[in-house]
Amino acid sequence: MSLLVIGTLAYDTVETAFDKRDNALGGSAMYFSLASAFYTKPALVGVVGQDFREEDLAMMRSKGVDCTGVEQVDGKTFRWGGRYEPDWNTRHTTFTELNVLEHFDPKVPEQSRNAKFVFLANAAPAVQARALDQVDAPTFVMADTMNLWLDIALDDLKGLIRRIDGLILNDEEARMLTGEDNLIRAAQQVLGMGPRYVIVKKGEHGAFLMGENVHFALPAYPVGTVVDPTGAGDCFAGGFMGAVAEADSIEPNVLRRAMVHGTITASFCVQGFSVEDIGSRTRAEIDERYNELLSIVTV
Amino acid sequence: MSLLVIGTLAYDTVETAFDKRDNALGGSAMYFSLASAFYTKPALVGVVGQDFREEDLAMMRSKGVDCTGVEQVDGKTFRWGGRYEPDWNTRHTTFTELNVLEHFDPKVPEQSRNAKFVFLANAAPAVQARALDQVDAPTFVMADTMNLWLDIALDDLKGLIRRIDGLILNDEEARMLTGEDNLIRAAQQVLGMGPRYVIVKKGEHGAFLMGENVHFALPAYPVGTVVDPTGAGDCFAGGFMGAVAEADSIEPNVLRRAMVHGTITASFCVQGFSVEDIGSRTRAEIDERYNELLSIVTV
Repeated sequence: MSLLVIGTLAYDTVETAFDKRDNALGGSAMYFSLASAFYTKPALVGVVGQDFREEDLAMMRSKGVDCTGVEQVDGKTFRWGGRYEPDWNTRHTTFTELNVLEHFDPKVPEQSRNAKFVFLANAAPAVQARALDQVDAPTFVMADTMNLWLDIALDDLKGLIRRIDGLILNDEEARMLTGEDNLIRAAQQVLGMGPRYVIVKKGEHGAFLMGENVHFALPAYPVGTVVDPTGAGDCFAGGFMGAVAEADSIEPNVLRRAMVHGTITASFCVQGFSVEDIGSRTRAEIDERYNELLSIVTV
Repeated sequence: MSLLVIGTLAYDTVETAFDKRDNALGGSAMYFSLASAFYTKPALVGVVGQDFREEDLAMMRSKGVDCTGVEQVDGKTFRWGGRYEPDWNTRHTTFTELNVLEHFDPKVPEQSRNAKFVFLANAAPAVQARALDQVDAPTFVMADTMNLWLDIALDDLKGLIRRIDGLILNDEEARMLTGEDNLIRAAQQVLGMGPRYVIVKKGEHGAFLMGENVHFALPAYPVGTVVDPTGAGDCFAGGFMGAVAEADSIEPNVLRRAMVHGTITASFCVQGFSVEDIGSRTRAEIDERYNELLSIVTV
């Protein structure tokens, strides 16, 4: 049931219509780790600079994240700035400072090379591939991506997609990757590119999973007040993979329940900036909301 | 288990990115009737002109729609023209010819005044109210509306809302009516305006129901090829109210199943122009797709 995640750690400057945070803890693999840590003890591989706050590492460790693979190198931690329109659906990147991420060469620690479950969080596809090269014989590898890589590294990304078991992407990325407006047809096309499973995330409209012997769709948990959507997709993936690793199975029923868990961890994430909400939750709160969502979606 | 619907019959001219139809059978109450006729024998109240095609009335009767309340008067039938952008989410009204609808004064036939279930399909709120005045003691009255009435007849609409059991509206209308961007909060505000139930339709993203002892959310049925979304909302309402009337109950479990039925009738509707698809379906096909959607949404 070992879970390994490779991706970014960052300091984010995020502005919404209502509030703002500077240099708040962020990054695809960081969000993923915290969400998956409700279910298992994930091993995190990533890179940070000399300015990375010891308290942030301590917080992750306290949640059960194995940070052995977090390499601290000379330079500054990756920084990203974003601004959301009031409708939450439009996000503007205000700045990107790659810093130590520019030369990120992931090194999977010896004790994590036999991981059964692997998540390649959003990063350059070539970096994701180099990380995957270092894992022996994983049972289930999923990868995330973003529109940037569809634009500038499409061939690398397509190569990676052929090597993984599942791809997770949002509606806009699914349309970009396939040129298909209809999301069902887009998902079918993704499956034709190699992976056995695809998850399409639709933000406030929920998510669906298509693949071998499974087709599952779920509305989002009804969050009354969204504070900051940053990291929601990573927390979805973390809840999903965490629940899969906990169950130590990719049976269709496990994947369905994992979709619900991903929806729940994402719903907590958007209720606060950075990890202000998700970082303060307990497994009991996760399970309570899981049951609440089940009651909402059960016919 | 008697179901009564009051609303429009129309001839629509609809243009999509792929195809076009002129003077095709349409109208809110027409779509509703056909969808609900899979479950019960709805009584339809509306007005048409001298140009209304006898074959269209014959088709509706053949499906089990009681057309006693369809009044044929001097003048031309209501005509509406619309054009959809390729993404389906943007609809432009190209023309509106009210014709006989301008002086529509609904007359509920004697034998339908004791209807238990009543649907006030999209029409001017004052017209909907006059229809409601003619029903004795209905168990469950739902109403639909549209952005036009929110713009030009808001007070009438708010008065109507206080008199009904449930309001059904789409996401854009829910936001307009309440000034609330978040749909959950918008729905809660609608409930504060009087009705015991509210259904918010989100097109390809599904629908949710909130109200007394029930909160239910459902993704849309995954339609691979949308041909024409016109009438989908009316077919949703028809499937919903038809299933409620068939069960002769508004128990929460009945309402949940009715939401699935509404989703299914809407999914057939969008697969063809006008009634080209929904008008050719059987109850067995409805039930088959109902079970398919259940298998997709069951955790």
